[in-house]
Amino acid sequence: MGEFMTETQHRPAGVPLATQPPEGRGTVVTGRAGPPGPADTPEAAVILERTRASVDPEMRAAVESLPPSMRRIAGYHFGWTDPDGTPASGGAGKAIRPALVLTAAAALGGPRARAAALRAAVAVELVHNFTLLHDDVMDRDTTRRHRPTAWTVFGDADAILAGDALQALALRLLADDPHPASAKAASRLADCVVELCAGQHADTALEKRRPTEVTLDEVLAMAEAKTGALLGCACALGALYAGAGDGGVRAMDAFGREAGLAFQLIDDVIGIWGDPSRTGKPVGADLAARKKSLPVVAALTSGGPAAQELAALYEAPYGQEDLQRTVLAVERAGGRDWAQAQAADRMACAVQALARAVPEPEEAGGLLALAEFVTRRSA
Amino acid sequence: MGEFMTETQHRPAGVPLATQPPEGRGTVVTGRAGPPGPADTPEAAVILERTRASVDPEMRAAVESLPPSMRRIAGYHFGWTDPDGTPASGGAGKAIRPALVLTAAAALGGPRARAAALRAAVAVELVHNFTLLHDDVMDRDTTRRHRPTAWTVFGDADAILAGDALQALALRLLADDPHPASAKAASRLADCVVELCAGQHADTALEKRRPTEVTLDEVLAMAEAKTGALLGCACALGALYAGAGDGGVRAMDAFGREAGLAFQLIDDVIGIWGDPSRTGKPVGADLAARKKSLPVVAALTSGGPAAQELAALYEAPYGQEDLQRTVLAVERAGGRDWAQAQAADRMACAVQALARAVPEPEEAGGLLALAEFVTRRSA
Repeated sequence: MGEFMTETQHRPAGVPLATQPPEGRGTVVTGRAGPPGPADTPEAAVILERTRASVDPEMRAAVESLPPSMRRIAGYHFGWTDPDGTPASGGAGKAIRPALVLTAAAALGGPRARAAALRAAVAVELVHNFTLLHDDVMDRDTTRRHRPTAWTVFGDADAILAGDALQALALRLLADDPHPASAKAASRLADCVVELCAGQHADTALEKRRPTEVTLDEVLAMAEAKTGALLGCACALGALYAGAGDGGVRAMDAFGREAGLAFQLIDDVIGIWGDPSRTGKPVGADLAARKKSLPVVAALTSGGPAAQELAALYEAPYGQEDLQRTVLAVERAGGRDWAQAQAADRMACAVQALARAVPEPEEAGGLLALAEFVTRRSA
Repeated sequence: MGEFMTETQHRPAGVPLATQPPEGRGTVVTGRAGPPGPADTPEAAVILERTRASVDPEMRAAVESLPPSMRRIAGYHFGWTDPDGTPASGGAGKAIRPALVLTAAAALGGPRARAAALRAAVAVELVHNFTLLHDDVMDRDTTRRHRPTAWTVFGDADAILAGDALQALALRLLADDPHPASAKAASRLADCVVELCAGQHADTALEKRRPTEVTLDEVLAMAEAKTGALLGCACALGALYAGAGDGGVRAMDAFGREAGLAFQLIDDVIGIWGDPSRTGKPVGADLAARKKSLPVVAALTSGGPAAQELAALYEAPYGQEDLQRTVLAVERAGGRDWAQAQAADRMACAVQALARAVPEPEEAGGLLALAEFVTRRSA
C-alpha cells in the first residue's frame, strides 16, 4: 500500500536509473494555486513530530504487550530493534495516518478530542503496518524503511504471523477503549481492512493481466482501495472521536480518500520522472517491473501511436535500453499530464470535502497542511 | 491448528500408511471412568447440528458482505462454492467452536443467552478459519476438508488476504454487536488471535530444532496456545454473553483449554496408532514428517534405550522401512501411555473447571458432551 518519503520501498539492486529530468519539470501541481509555499511544510512537519511524540510511547507499549516471539518480529519491522532484539535507532515511518486521526479529532473537537483519539491513532498505524508486513511477503519486496523486510529476515511464516498479531492488537486497543466512539471506530477500521485486502488483491490481479486489458477505472478503484481507504478511515476515526455525526464522518472520510488518491497519483509520477537523489527511490523501477501504475494505464488507454508503442514495449521483455523510450512513450501518450491534472482534481475534491467536514476554515489548516505534505513533493 | 474429524488434514499422496493396529488397542481413555457410553455421542451430535443450523446462515451472511474477490476465496475455503464461484455441497466443518460458545452461554444464561451469543459464535468460527487459511499457507498443507487448500487453488497471496479479511470480519461482527458483553468479547478474541499466532510460531520453530533439543513443557505450551486457546476463548465468550463474572469466565476458559489439550493429545495418538479407515488420516504421516508431536516428545525425553533409538531414527532421513520401528520406539519409550494418561488428566482438569464454571450439574451436560466428543475417538 502507498508509502510516504522515508518509507519508500527500494527495489533490489541492479534496476537501472533514468537520467535526471530537466530542472523544474518534476514539480507537482496540487489543488492549491501557485508554487508550494515554504510556510506550510513546517506546519506539517510540526504536526508529524507532535504525532510521533504522542503515538510512539503508546505504539511501543502495545507491541510490548505481545508475546516475545511476535514482539521481536514487530519490533524489527518498526525499526526499533535489530533481528536479535537489541535496540536499533531506525524510525518507524512518518506517522502520517495517526497524524490524520489526531488532527481530524482536534479540528472537530479540540485538544480534548485529540487526546481521546490517541488509541485510535495507534490502531490505525498498527493496521497500516500489518498490511505492510503482509504486502511485502506477497510482493516479495526486499527493502522497507532502508532495511531488509521482515520476511527476508524471519521468513514468510513469521512475517505473516506478526502481521496477523498486529491486526488483532489494533482491534483489541479499540475494544478496550471505553470512549463512546470506540465500537463504531473498530467497525469502521475492520471494514477498512477488508477494503485494503480487496485492493491488494486487485493490484496483484491487475499485474497479471495484459497491459492492454486494464482500464483506467479499474486502476483508480484499486488505488482508492489500497491507498485512499486507510487515509479516509484515519480521518473518519478522528471525526468519530470528536463526536461528529454521520455526515461529518463521511465528509472526513472523503477528504482522506481523495487526498490519498492524489498522493498515489503523485507517487506514481515520481516513480517515473522523479529525481532519485531527492526521492531515494530508484527511478524506472516501476517501468522495469512493468507496473500498471496510474500514469502508465492512462497512457495505455489514451489511443494513438504513443499508446501503441507503450503497449508493445510493455508486452516485450524488459531491456535496459528501452527505459528512456518507455518513459517518453508514457509522456507523449499524455500519462504524465493526466496524472498531474487528476491529482489536482483529487486535491480539489479533498479540499471541498474538508470544507464540508470542518466548517471553520481556521480549524481545517492542519489537515490541509498534511494533505499538501503528502501530495506536494517535487519529483 | 487442531482439527476435528472431517476437517482432518490429508497429507500429499505418497505418504506410506502404517498397517492397522490390533483391534481395540486404539480406544482412548478419557477422564470419565469406563468405556465411552453410546448415550453421549448423540447428544453432542445434536448440539453440533443445532449449532450449524443457527450459525450457518449468519456465517454465510457475513461472508456475503465481503467484496466479491474476498468472498470467492472464503466461499471456496468454507466448501460452499467451487473455485469459480458455483455452489458446491461441501461442509464447512464440525462447528465445534461455535457450539462451545452457544452451549456455554446456554449453560449459564439459558436460551436467551444462547441466542444473544450467536454473533460471538460466528466470530469465533471466522477466526478459526482465518487461522486455517494462513496455517495452510505456512505449513504448505495441500488438502483441507477433502479439498485442495485455498492457497493451492488461488495462490499464497489470495489465501493470506482472505484470511486477513476473515479476521477483520470476525472483529467487526463483535464491534457491531450492541450486546453489553461485546467489547469484552472482542478484546478477548483479539488476545486469543495473538496467542494463536505465538502458538503457530512456536510450532514452526520447534519443527526446525533437533529432536533432542525440545522439551515436553515447550510442546505442551505450544499445543495449549495453538489448540487450547481458541477452545477456551469460545467457552469464555459464551460465559461473557451470559453475564458471568470474571471468575466464571476464567473457569470456562480453563475448561475449554484443558479439553483442547486433551483433544490434541488424543489427536497425536491417533496420528500414530489410529486406524486410517476410521480416521480418514494416513497413519504414519506425522512420524514420516518427523513431527514433534506430544507422544513423540514424551518418548524422546523419557531417557533409556528406546528414547535413544527414537532420537537416532528422527535424526536420520526417513525411510519407509523405519516406520514400524519408529512407532514401536515411541510406544516402548512410553510416549503412548504418557499421552493417554495426560489426556485423562487434562479431561479431569476440564471437568473440575467446568464444575467451577457451571455449579448446576444438569446445566453442564452439553459442554461435557462436547468435550467428550472431541476427545473420545477410538483410534
